[in-house]
Amino acid sequence: MSSSHVYKKVEIVGSSPNSIEEAIQNALDECGKSVRNMEWFEVVETRGHIVDGKVGHFQVSLKIGFRIGKD
Amino acid sequence: MSSSHVYKKVEIVGSSPNSIEEAIQNALDECGKSVRNMEWFEVVETRGHIVDGKVGHFQVSLKIGFRIGKD
Amino acid sequence: MSSSHVYKKVEIVGSSPNSIEEAIQNALDECGKSVRNMEWFEVVETRGHIVDGKVGHFQVSLKIGFRIGKD
Amino acid sequence: MSSSHVYKKVEIVGSSPNSIEEAIQNALDECGKSVRNMEWFEVVETRGHIVDGKVGHFQVSLKIGFRIGKD
Amino acid sequence: MSSSHVYKKVEIVGSSPNSIEEAIQNALDECGKSVRNMEWFEVVETRGHIVDGKVGHFQVSLKIGFRIGKD
Amino acid sequence: MSSSHVYKKVEIVGSSPNSIEEAIQNALDECGKSVRNMEWFEVVETRGHIVDGKVGHFQVSLKIGFRIGKD
Amino acid sequence: MSSSHVYKKVEIVGSSPNSIEEAIQNALDECGKSVRNMEWFEVVETRGHIVDGKVGHFQVSLKIGFRIGKD
Amino acid sequence: MSSSHVYKKVEIVGSSPNSIEEAIQNALDECGKSVRNMEWFEVVETRGHIVDGKVGHFQVSLKIGFRIGKD
Amino acid sequence: MSSSHVYKKVEIVGSSPNSIEEAIQNALDECGKSVRNMEWFEVVETRGHIVDGKVGHFQVSLKIGFRIGKD
Amino acid sequence: MSSSHVYKKVEIVGSSPNSIEEAIQNALDECGKSVRNMEWFEVVETRGHIVDGKVGHFQVSLKIGFRIGKD
Amino acid sequence: MSSSHVYKKVEIVGSSPNSIEEAIQNALDECGKSVRNMEWFEVVETRGHIVDGKVGHFQVSLKIGFRIGKD
Amino acid sequence: MSSSHVYKKVEIVGSSPNSIEEAIQNALDECGKSVRNMEWFEVVETRGHIVDGKVGHFQVSLKIGFRIGKD
Repeated sequence: MSSSHVYKKVEIVGSSPNSIEEAIQNALDECGKSVRNMEWFEVVETRGHIVDGKVGHFQVSLKIGFRIGKD
Repeated sequence: MSSSHVYKKVEIVGSSPNSIEEAIQNALDECGKSVRNMEWFEVVETRGHIVDGKVGHFQVSLKIGFRIGKD
Repeated sequence: MSSSHVYKKVEIVGSSPNSIEEAIQNALDECGKSVRNMEWFEVVETRGHIVDGKVGHFQVSLKIGFRIGKD
Repeated sequence: MSSSHVYKKVEIVGSSPNSIEEAIQNALDECGKSVRNMEWFEVVETRGHIVDGKVGHFQVSLKIGFRIGKD
Repeated sequence: MSSSHVYKKVEIVGSSPNSIEEAIQNALDECGKSVRNMEWFEVVETRGHIVDGKVGHFQVSLKIGFRIGKD
Repeated sequence: MSSSHVYKKVEIVGSSPNSIEEAIQNALDECGKSVRNMEWFEVVETRGHIVDGKVGHFQVSLKIGFRIGKD
Repeated sequence: MSSSHVYKKVEIVGSSPNSIEEAIQNALDECGKSVRNMEWFEVVETRGHIVDGKVGHFQVSLKIGFRIGKD
Repeated sequence: MSSSHVYKKVEIVGSSPNSIEEAIQNALDECGKSVRNMEWFEVVETRGHIVDGKVGHFQVSLKIGFRIGKD
Repeated sequence: MSSSHVYKKVEIVGSSPNSIEEAIQNALDECGKSVRNMEWFEVVETRGHIVDGKVGHFQVSLKIGFRIGKD
Repeated sequence: MSSSHVYKKVEIVGSSPNSIEEAIQNALDECGKSVRNMEWFEVVETRGHIVDGKVGHFQVSLKIGFRIGKD
Repeated sequence: MSSSHVYKKVEIVGSSPNSIEEAIQNALDECGKSVRNMEWFEVVETRGHIVDGKVGHFQVSLKIGFRIGKD
Repeated sequence: MSSSHVYKKVEIVGSSPNSIEEAIQNALDECGKSVRNMEWFEVVETRGHIVDGKVGHFQVSLKIGFRIGKD
């Protein structure tokens, strides 16, 4: 039925030296290169590595949902 | 060794206006268009959206496992 | 900003002697008597009680999300 | 004290080719052959296996609670 | 006893196109219109929707705790 | 159907300087001032604050379930 | 090897109108009627039902571990 | 229906001074003395006790699933 | 900034033959011998061992939070 | 920015009749046939099936992370 | 073996009136006063307290991993 | 009371290129250099990094419990 969409979720880890929000957007940018119809994301983990006592990069794991099948 | 299978799991969200079971089958139908050897599924989340106070669609997130590598 | 909605979630347990889907709809029906703008639900638990060895009622706990604030 | 009941929970997996509800009832039917005083169930996992791209069986893990000790 | 406070928690989802922090504050602003004595919040989920490959809104689910009963 | 009850759960934090049990009862007492038909509770978190190295208050988060709709 | 014990865990729900500790002991008492060599317990859930706005019974789910096999 | 199997899961803790795999097998060996038709296991916890700074025993909690009812 | 405190959490297991509350206090007593500025605790696990079918000791795992850095 | 890597995680189930470590390596071997730049894995589940009362295969679910986008 | 590092994780709560990122950095700053070789962090909880309806402080619990033993 | 022990848990990550068991023992070895009276461990996470498509190191996070206070 045309009104019953199906979605796929992939798990992507974005990183940024500046902020959690930028790490999320970086993940979407990379994912968007190979996937169309991205609709939502869910944060599943926030980590980071440390360089000289400072945050080196925020690393945010996202599940990204996108529509598959008939448009 | 031929008896040591390897499987991949993908996460798919199926939807249906009628039932949870139909949402699951719709997810399998769409996934089966690009994947062979589907063997099992695991329900990871059941949600839905609401239209005029009624269930509009059941939305069921599944992990679907399928065999990869040598048949 | 008008495009930044705020939602409230309430947790409701619906029951039905017949099916999980009907238990969900019964929860929405009762919740809709006092809440407007219900938009989605999330199943958080499925239980039931047993009468004479048979399912007496399916009892489904839902979080129901609805928009609050400016329409 | 007679008003302080004690219960045991056992974990049973029921299956059905047709529906989640029937898988639950099948689990209760089998459990009821050896256990009396079943009072409630809690769904802990919903899975299934896939045959030719279709749901072969829904497999539902339940914890079933029943009263033990003095009636 | 006057020193034994009681609190209620409600679950609110705030959104913002700009940041997670602003989404949290938007949730507090809306909740504060009907609730007094808000004391703390707990982030329970961070999600968002995607528009044209970019974060459309950050959506942050909070539990907000506030004191009830005698002041 | 008259036999298909619907329940709401609210999350309340009770506190007591003396015991976990008293903190639970204090939560019920306060909740009972505005809610009728309370039927069960579920402990979701036990915390406390510390004063001079001693337990100042036990703080117990409960979900309290009560029947809504037709009596 | 004689030093490699094997244990079984069963899940029992004890109840008491008075305290969580007594509910735990009541579970052990009933379990001990059919099981020997009980060695430890793990609390997995604390709930209760409410009568006239007061705690009717504390209901504590325990996993009880006991040694099986060679003594 | 003959194709709708029902399974029971029991939780067993096996131990071994040598390896996690041997602890699992020891649990199966003991369980197999009283249970037929064991089909699968799920590791739910890995622990151990320490003797003189060395692993004394690995202790692995398993859920073991076996078919019940008609063969 | 002086108003931005930093805290450390340590995980301590207290035990008592008498009650959960006493086990918590015993953990605080021991922790307080080496740590100043304890402010709150969070119960993370409640277990116990069994002696002759009775509770030998309640064993309660706590996270204890205390302020570090500038007073 | 060249220093802000993006990663994808896929979930693979490896199996081995001999050990958990070999099941992990088998998953990496198969995944490595289609994916470059694998950097880390996370064990998410350990299961197995049982043949004649013995471990038939260890089945280990892994999330495998690999770098995507610009090298 | 020199290539087999060992790490310790400690749990620190940082706070900031301004942002989640600053709360994380404040936790690292304080931890770095007594610990060398900090390598990564994992966010385990995000909370905050509320003052006059506004976020007073973001409070972020981190596990911070650092290398111990031979450099 | 002399029979009411208090324990502390610390979280240590051991690594090994060879096996999960060796990674656990390496964590105990390093921890034992500064801690006496280690009594038990709990595995909380198993990960690893990958070098040229092979397991480089198994990395196992443990909570290690040891007795504190009066011997």
